[in-house]
Amino acid sequence: MTVTNDQTTDHYAAARSRADLVAAELRASAAERDRTNADPTAEIELLREHDLLQVGEPVEFGGSGLDYAQSQQITRRVARGDTSIAHLLGYHYAQQRIPHLFGTPEQAEALSRRNAQEKPFWGGVQNPRGADGLVLTRVGDEYRLDGRRTFASGASVADQLSVTASYGDALVFLTLPTDRTGFEPQGDWDNIGQRLTDSGGVVFRDAPVRPDEILGSPDSPPTFTPYQTLVTPHWQLAFVNFYIGTAEGALEEALDWTRLNATAWETAGLESATDDPYILELVGALKAEISGAALLADRAGQALVEALATGESLTAEQRADTAVTIAEAKFVTTKVSLEAASRLFEIQGARATTTAYGFDRHWRNLRTHTVHDPVAYKAREIGDWTLNRRAPQFTLYS
Amino acid sequence: MTVTNDQTTDHYAAARSRADLVAAELRASAAERDRTNADPTAEIELLREHDLLQVGEPVEFGGSGLDYAQSQQITRRVARGDTSIAHLLGYHYAQQRIPHLFGTPEQAEALSRRNAQEKPFWGGVQNPRGADGLVLTRVGDEYRLDGRRTFASGASVADQLSVTASYGDALVFLTLPTDRTGFEPQGDWDNIGQRLTDSGGVVFRDAPVRPDEILGSPDSPPTFTPYQTLVTPHWQLAFVNFYIGTAEGALEEALDWTRLNATAWETAGLESATDDPYILELVGALKAEISGAALLADRAGQALVEALATGESLTAEQRADTAVTIAEAKFVTTKVSLEAASRLFEIQGARATTTAYGFDRHWRNLRTHTVHDPVAYKAREIGDWTLNRRAPQFTLYS
Amino acid sequence: MTVTNDQTTDHYAAARSRADLVAAELRASAAERDRTNADPTAEIELLREHDLLQVGEPVEFGGSGLDYAQSQQITRRVARGDTSIAHLLGYHYAQQRIPHLFGTPEQAEALSRRNAQEKPFWGGVQNPRGADGLVLTRVGDEYRLDGRRTFASGASVADQLSVTASYGDALVFLTLPTDRTGFEPQGDWDNIGQRLTDSGGVVFRDAPVRPDEILGSPDSPPTFTPYQTLVTPHWQLAFVNFYIGTAEGALEEALDWTRLNATAWETAGLESATDDPYILELVGALKAEISGAALLADRAGQALVEALATGESLTAEQRADTAVTIAEAKFVTTKVSLEAASRLFEIQGARATTTAYGFDRHWRNLRTHTVHDPVAYKAREIGDWTLNRRAPQFTLYS
Amino acid sequence: MTVTNDQTTDHYAAARSRADLVAAELRASAAERDRTNADPTAEIELLREHDLLQVGEPVEFGGSGLDYAQSQQITRRVARGDTSIAHLLGYHYAQQRIPHLFGTPEQAEALSRRNAQEKPFWGGVQNPRGADGLVLTRVGDEYRLDGRRTFASGASVADQLSVTASYGDALVFLTLPTDRTGFEPQGDWDNIGQRLTDSGGVVFRDAPVRPDEILGSPDSPPTFTPYQTLVTPHWQLAFVNFYIGTAEGALEEALDWTRLNATAWETAGLESATDDPYILELVGALKAEISGAALLADRAGQALVEALATGESLTAEQRADTAVTIAEAKFVTTKVSLEAASRLFEIQGARATTTAYGFDRHWRNLRTHTVHDPVAYKAREIGDWTLNRRAPQFTLYS
Repeated sequence: MTVTNDQTTDHYAAARSRADLVAAELRASAAERDRTNADPTAEIELLREHDLLQVGEPVEFGGSGLDYAQSQQITRRVARGDTSIAHLLGYHYAQQRIPHLFGTPEQAEALSRRNAQEKPFWGGVQNPRGADGLVLTRVGDEYRLDGRRTFASGASVADQLSVTASYGDALVFLTLPTDRTGFEPQGDWDNIGQRLTDSGGVVFRDAPVRPDEILGSPDSPPTFTPYQTLVTPHWQLAFVNFYIGTAEGALEEALDWTRLNATAWETAGLESATDDPYILELVGALKAEISGAALLADRAGQALVEALATGESLTAEQRADTAVTIAEAKFVTTKVSLEAASRLFEIQGARATTTAYGFDRHWRNLRTHTVHDPVAYKAREIGDWTLNRRAPQFTLYS
Repeated sequence: MTVTNDQTTDHYAAARSRADLVAAELRASAAERDRTNADPTAEIELLREHDLLQVGEPVEFGGSGLDYAQSQQITRRVARGDTSIAHLLGYHYAQQRIPHLFGTPEQAEALSRRNAQEKPFWGGVQNPRGADGLVLTRVGDEYRLDGRRTFASGASVADQLSVTASYGDALVFLTLPTDRTGFEPQGDWDNIGQRLTDSGGVVFRDAPVRPDEILGSPDSPPTFTPYQTLVTPHWQLAFVNFYIGTAEGALEEALDWTRLNATAWETAGLESATDDPYILELVGALKAEISGAALLADRAGQALVEALATGESLTAEQRADTAVTIAEAKFVTTKVSLEAASRLFEIQGARATTTAYGFDRHWRNLRTHTVHDPVAYKAREIGDWTLNRRAPQFTLYS
Repeated sequence: MTVTNDQTTDHYAAARSRADLVAAELRASAAERDRTNADPTAEIELLREHDLLQVGEPVEFGGSGLDYAQSQQITRRVARGDTSIAHLLGYHYAQQRIPHLFGTPEQAEALSRRNAQEKPFWGGVQNPRGADGLVLTRVGDEYRLDGRRTFASGASVADQLSVTASYGDALVFLTLPTDRTGFEPQGDWDNIGQRLTDSGGVVFRDAPVRPDEILGSPDSPPTFTPYQTLVTPHWQLAFVNFYIGTAEGALEEALDWTRLNATAWETAGLESATDDPYILELVGALKAEISGAALLADRAGQALVEALATGESLTAEQRADTAVTIAEAKFVTTKVSLEAASRLFEIQGARATTTAYGFDRHWRNLRTHTVHDPVAYKAREIGDWTLNRRAPQFTLYS
Repeated sequence: MTVTNDQTTDHYAAARSRADLVAAELRASAAERDRTNADPTAEIELLREHDLLQVGEPVEFGGSGLDYAQSQQITRRVARGDTSIAHLLGYHYAQQRIPHLFGTPEQAEALSRRNAQEKPFWGGVQNPRGADGLVLTRVGDEYRLDGRRTFASGASVADQLSVTASYGDALVFLTLPTDRTGFEPQGDWDNIGQRLTDSGGVVFRDAPVRPDEILGSPDSPPTFTPYQTLVTPHWQLAFVNFYIGTAEGALEEALDWTRLNATAWETAGLESATDDPYILELVGALKAEISGAALLADRAGQALVEALATGESLTAEQRADTAVTIAEAKFVTTKVSLEAASRLFEIQGARATTTAYGFDRHWRNLRTHTVHDPVAYKAREIGDWTLNRRAPQFTLYS
């Protein structure tokens, strides 16, 4: 028992080290890859080579045995080098947990084993905004999937897809390989940030779905117990971690640059920019704010892990507490990381605006993803719970 | 071993419960006592009755065996009811640790035992700002103390004093009873906030000091090892905790009031103020910010406890890390608690400005103490450490 | 014509000088009067002696002929010395304009003449929040007024009252002397700020009202043309001016104090606090923000004067533009003045928190009045007009 | 006299209309041109075709007779469509005024006439940061210019250059055609924002300079009277105007997009995003802040025009007041425009992050130029003047 525990610690430390290596490698080329805007095929291969795709699966299957909070710490570390790739990885970890919430034990175990052994990369087709969603229909003994979605992160570079679809009045979760007939990623992602997330639209045209690809039983779709509705906090926790990891990485990068390149402001009467009272004040302010936001992200991870450990007996109130704890982290990390990404230029000065450095990508990345769902509504949810004990309504955003 | 551990946990839980009781009792009368502005004699008696003065002393002596971070969590809880009394208590806990940093083992143990058994309340005469500081001189085999200080919190209601004085070129720490000949508290504290902290000036006129009242040996004054310079982080951690406790208490109080008294804004078209989108958003924003600041305060406490555990082998770099971790908490708690104390009125509305409620005391309390030392310089210290690895210079503020 | 113009300029300059004198006199005793919390009888007498009560009436009647924007500049100047008294004066100017919006020409002229000659101080009973409003009923050829209101500024020290009451389904405006039978000011104003505004509740018990005391004709109550609904912008413009005047005065006062009393921070390595980089930065930031807010207040005044000049042909769109221009000033002056009142202590340092200085009154004054109506709804109104061209709904707040 | 006055008004109105047309045309292609990053040759031609290059020259010479504040209002309007082009135009207007500050009357008039008739576009080589500045030396009866500069806006697309160079211990201003032998623009501008400003480096290698190309007399270099040091406020006023114009244009553009494209947030229970309480609040807040900043920019322009009208009798104190008034506008416009450019996405939502819209260019443009000189030092200058009456030191930044 103690041994296992130590092993887990070792596995976690090793996974963190691998993540740091990957982050360093990604950072070196992040600005250039951001401009090139190619599919992140090589980057996913990098994650795979460093055994980062299966960290959340049991050690005995070939994973690192990390709990979900730990795996999102891996996301955070990768985000210090590249927010897009961390986004893909954070979602990937979340998708891997869905069978554990909605699948049969057999489905969950089979997918875990396969994740650990084959290291597939998971894309997701969840975003339910927009008129023509995905519809699953039964045709005899088989099923068919039709419809389109926008913003399906990593769908075209993934091996495996985690899909949410309507099935009659119900919502069901599917797992499908990306080479399934009728699946067509649109490759139309060209946005100002998160450029390497391959978050374009996808179309399913009469795509066949086998019964065992429907998590749980197709005859008894999910009832969405409080425990199952933890699915959304999984995604939100990923966001929180790649926001704060981005801020941490951007600060580190800006300070490195400043030490090497910045020159004292000419009316300051100083030898070095690193002695400037306003630069020191701003570094200190941003550092402190980032530290606080990171602690909220840590706490959010712990809260989710504790809720997951409670299992199916999780009460609606406990689920609300978990979601709100993550919402608090979301609110603060959003604010702090955007502010840092924008104000770091005031530390570095005018020469840091050269395109080659690509320092603007941090703000672009954060700005792009932080409007995924409006942070004002997160504040409202926190407020409603704090003031009125009204739980956030379960949606694919809350 | 396990037993001791559980006992400590029990003692901590019990101390927290007592603190919560005291906070509730203090809150009920805080607005009125703030107006009356009497010496906090009864309040200190309340702390003593609830065995809150000796929580940091060993269980075997009669204390609760809390580490310093835990004792400052008691400060935080008391601050939810009354910031002034928490200020006195937080400083008191800090003063009790000074013999452990600067005294001989015998002095430290003797004072610990006495703290646990007699439950004296400690005041402090530290604030070294201003021209005519305190000077200790040797007269034959005895010593004499002369000088004046402003801002000596709790000096006139204390049983025992923790004093910093000049002795030749050195700085020494003394412990003196408040009935010592020549000690004259001025009773001149009348400020806009922290009104019950009895923080007026004090004068020493030819006050005799026995050699054993000088911590350590008078012949070898402190060299201020990194470990000893942890004295300042002790005070700063107290501040951090009564700032954030104040914010937590103010929010709680404002929400209670809002549930009972607030009415929906008339153009909002709502039945209840508690459904107002802007009120919910603001509650959520403040709640999230306060949570983040509180986590920084928690982390700051852990950092100090770890540094203390390292003992005299603490390096200058470790000391800097500790001080900067506390500075980060100071920076964010200052900002967040002031903002909360001011903006809570926007949740409650106009009727909450009635003097009888005394809700303005939160802002007044925080505003008064948060200028104790300029927070801009804390940001600068964090920045200088983060950017340049230049450690904060040790002073009685850093 | 040119002559008149110059005279007006002279009258305006003279009124501004008198306001500055009054402000200086009020400032000298503001902290003490704030603590005493007496009725502002002497202060109103001071305004009267300096001929500040009738500045908005025609020169030929004995006033200064100022337009409404100019008269609110007088409010702003007085607010630099005392926010409470400026509040009373700002409302007073607004009440004096109501007969010009709702009265017959004869009523308006008669009241103007009387304002200029007798210099009555006008209180107001408008605040319509709360259940039991004021109801006017007809009893034979006479009318009776019944009901109660909270927050009736200056009602107990006024000579004359401007009253809004329900009359059947309509809203009517009355002018009544304060010695009217059945009028009972409650004298129950004791709030954390604006302490000298005498803003307690009032009761009318079967108070007789003569037909000519009803503005316009009681048989044809106001239809609330766009022009008439400018009544609310009158009040809102007063607020804007005493907010920004308070910020201007508080900054001036803080800087005066700083020049005389502040000492350099001890780790700053400076001779004087006035050389501190962070103090200079903060002074500069607050000064710039206050300047911008003041310009919005100026523009708001011009907008209202232009709308008034248009007269009864004012369109609903023009009215909306006017109200929104004032709302913009309200939003920014609220934010800026509160921030300044709180942060000025960071310029001055800890000694400025002494009660005798009373510097906290600025924040208390602003905090109290800025929740009169929620500023979030002002932002919403601006947004709704800017985005959707939906005009703010006319209420006694918009 | 009246006639002239009306003519000026007509000319100003006409110039504003032309600027609005140009802005509309530029906006339509701004996102695409930002990506292409070509030299702004066509854009300058557009300004020339619309007679915007000579608006500040006398009507009798063929200009529009606008004063300098009016011409920078043209800059502001163009910035609503394209910040880069407004930057070029704002600098161009500033360069055109330099001969009036430093040249002989004959030089000034000759250049004015030529500006009006030939409509040359002026680039500038001023930025004095960096080691190897420009040095003018006398060789017999001729002069030679050598050195290099970074950040010379518009130098490679300009017809004429305004150059600052060292001449012995003095600083001199030159005007040179861009086809001068030895002048080599480097074409190395590739930055994250202001991409179309052609702000790369330039080199002068033994470039001949005629005596009459040196403003004033080469034998008596400028003494930098307070009047002459108004040169820097000219540039700073240009900045202020293209910052706030960018914010105005970005808001307009975002609202247009929102009306057409935004969809209500799915948990909001609303039919349209334009009814969302948080969107309305944010629109209102940004609108109000932008209005206030724009008024500061207006006031800054008036201050400079008044100082210019005073002429050589301008005192050092008046010069300081002018510079500080512009610094106040700089401080607030910087803050407000950056915040608007970033937060507008929260109004529009996730779909607005599509690259094709190019909405991120506003933040990139502002972020790039607002670090031209540190805004913290502007705050400091305002503070030093407000608190200490210490005038900003004249530099090419203050």
